[in-house]
Amino acid sequence: MELINDEYYMRLALQLASSASGQTGINPAVGCVIVKDGRIVGMGAHLKRGEAHAEVHALNMAGAEAEGATAYVTLEPCSHHGRTPPCSDRLIRERVKRVVVAATDPNPLVAGSGLERLRAHGLEVTQGVLEGEANLLNEAFNKFIVTRRPFVTVKTASTLDGKIAAKTGDSKWITNDASRSFVHTLRHRHLAILTGIGTVLADDPALTTRLSVPGLNPMRVVVDSALRIPPDAQLVRDGAAPTVVLTTDRAPEARRRELEARGVTVIDCGPGPAVDLYAAMAKLGELEIGSLLVEGGGKLNGALLAARLVDKLVLFLAPKIIGGGALAPGSMDFAGFERMGEAIRLERMSVQSFGEDLCITGYPQYAGGKEAQ
Amino acid sequence: MELINDEYYMRLALQLASSASGQTGINPAVGCVIVKDGRIVGMGAHLKRGEAHAEVHALNMAGAEAEGATAYVTLEPCSHHGRTPPCSDRLIRERVKRVVVAATDPNPLVAGSGLERLRAHGLEVTQGVLEGEANLLNEAFNKFIVTRRPFVTVKTASTLDGKIAAKTGDSKWITNDASRSFVHTLRHRHLAILTGIGTVLADDPALTTRLSVPGLNPMRVVVDSALRIPPDAQLVRDGAAPTVVLTTDRAPEARRRELEARGVTVIDCGPGPAVDLYAAMAKLGELEIGSLLVEGGGKLNGALLAARLVDKLVLFLAPKIIGGGALAPGSMDFAGFERMGEAIRLERMSVQSFGEDLCITGYPQYAGGKEAQ
Repeated sequence: MELINDEYYMRLALQLASSASGQTGINPAVGCVIVKDGRIVGMGAHLKRGEAHAEVHALNMAGAEAEGATAYVTLEPCSHHGRTPPCSDRLIRERVKRVVVAATDPNPLVAGSGLERLRAHGLEVTQGVLEGEANLLNEAFNKFIVTRRPFVTVKTASTLDGKIAAKTGDSKWITNDASRSFVHTLRHRHLAILTGIGTVLADDPALTTRLSVPGLNPMRVVVDSALRIPPDAQLVRDGAAPTVVLTTDRAPEARRRELEARGVTVIDCGPGPAVDLYAAMAKLGELEIGSLLVEGGGKLNGALLAARLVDKLVLFLAPKIIGGGALAPGSMDFAGFERMGEAIRLERMSVQSFGEDLCITGYPQYAGGKEAQ
Repeated sequence: MELINDEYYMRLALQLASSASGQTGINPAVGCVIVKDGRIVGMGAHLKRGEAHAEVHALNMAGAEAEGATAYVTLEPCSHHGRTPPCSDRLIRERVKRVVVAATDPNPLVAGSGLERLRAHGLEVTQGVLEGEANLLNEAFNKFIVTRRPFVTVKTASTLDGKIAAKTGDSKWITNDASRSFVHTLRHRHLAILTGIGTVLADDPALTTRLSVPGLNPMRVVVDSALRIPPDAQLVRDGAAPTVVLTTDRAPEARRRELEARGVTVIDCGPGPAVDLYAAMAKLGELEIGSLLVEGGGKLNGALLAARLVDKLVLFLAPKIIGGGALAPGSMDFAGFERMGEAIRLERMSVQSFGEDLCITGYPQYAGGKEAQ
């Protein structure tokens, strides 16, 4: 039995927000609960970019009951005219008495202005209730809105000896059904998936979201410095979601035109020979890719780690030992460090079980700090 | 608050047994609690090989109170004359009324005969209370008594990318203080530690038990096919515990004599070039090494896995990524399998946290079964 208090209603608002995470595009996930005289009178979440914010849905449900009520909102109500009118004005107009907020707007230029506006109109404002949970929910948006670069999550699936395939290349399957289903949930919640040309040539993946119910397909992005992606690759021909290929000035012009004719977006990221990953992140940011799930091989994972571009790691570990020494590929292939003390450290690590598989989540901390923003 | 019942007293008996695990040599850890009229009147554990069994200590404490009492014993009381007289006779003589037993004698040739003897003399016998816990506590003894070969536990400490050192060889330290302290607890509980000559040459380890209180040092065993161990290695000169070197017929006779002159036991395990690990296990069994903790490098771990000689794995994972590709050594270096479906699987896996380190424990299951016994 839970204690009913501000946190109780905010937790519900967070659940509403979380449930719609992945379907709001570059917008943050936001939830709202309106409570009056001990009863919930309205609930809402932001469901789609360009459409009503969470507060508007909840206030519509509350109707006249909103007057004198308390509104629980997971993110500071906006005070500016965007694609929809400012929510703080709507809360004022409906004569809401008190507003409880979890997180303030992450953009330092506007943070707090929505709350000031509410206070200036006599509404009682409480902030910081379950702020940590609210910030975690929108960790990708919070990075993007400040840096205009995607929040990068690298997902790997390896054996207990750190291998992502046998020495023959066989990798089907390392993890169990439950782990693989969770990966499809991750896909649903991300705006784009990044993979390498090696994975495309080896597996011809679709990189679509396949759940027991319909999900949303993220944009597919391939790092392919020489444009080796075959015109008959699933990513080029299936039309399931937009496909972007990141390449270099060295890419053959004919291949580029052929891919573009098939609807693929080809983006130059530097002179080569390798794709400039820093530049790539800026270009993906321009496409409003706020969250990027990396599902590649050891080389792509390693290159991103070496470039200090990884914000989060999701490491599935299967209860298996495959062996194979240097012939079996590892999950993170990069030049690495000379001293154990220089190693990248995982912070805020957590462990979850999917059947007999383990899933370790954490945030890499780099000895020299993150990449230049 | 715990419910007081048979399991309650048996759990106490198991705690007594477990506390003395590691100090009974090749003998199993056993605990005993005597209860009469709702009060504990005696408690005991087997403390040292050749000395009193758990029942004897507990009955001595109970004195005349033993008559009509219930005795909880974690292992079936012995019915044969070994180094001490049979405990079943003592329980009968003291007129104990009821005996509750967790596990029966693991030796199939004698299992149950102690209980039959008790029943034949009119004692009430209950068996199987917390049997699983009792068998787990003596998993090493249970293997040894049937096979005369040691129960082999491989311990590794690696980064999240499966490396046991940086590409330079630097490995100090991968895991944290808490994890390393636990390794010393493992040493205390094992009869011998096995390592490879590579580790001896690289680190010159002492392989002693270093805890904040005194512990017991296990025998040190080195796999060294060509007798390359230096006469001034700590293992040869420190005298902290017996040292055994496993070698082959190819070992230079002069080196062998030099080592033996310094008190080292040198054992031939096959014609070479590598030490025959199957033969080695039989030889260690002859020395009454019932439990073997392997603290070596990837080559020794890999060779033991490939030979299907590993009974248990204890894998410490530090929240670090070191990189280094094939230059940085992995935790298990062996030829490995061609298909992911052939991989060695960990069963009964459990995960424990030591600060930010994870410790994964499990029992490898081999596609073709274990080694021939």
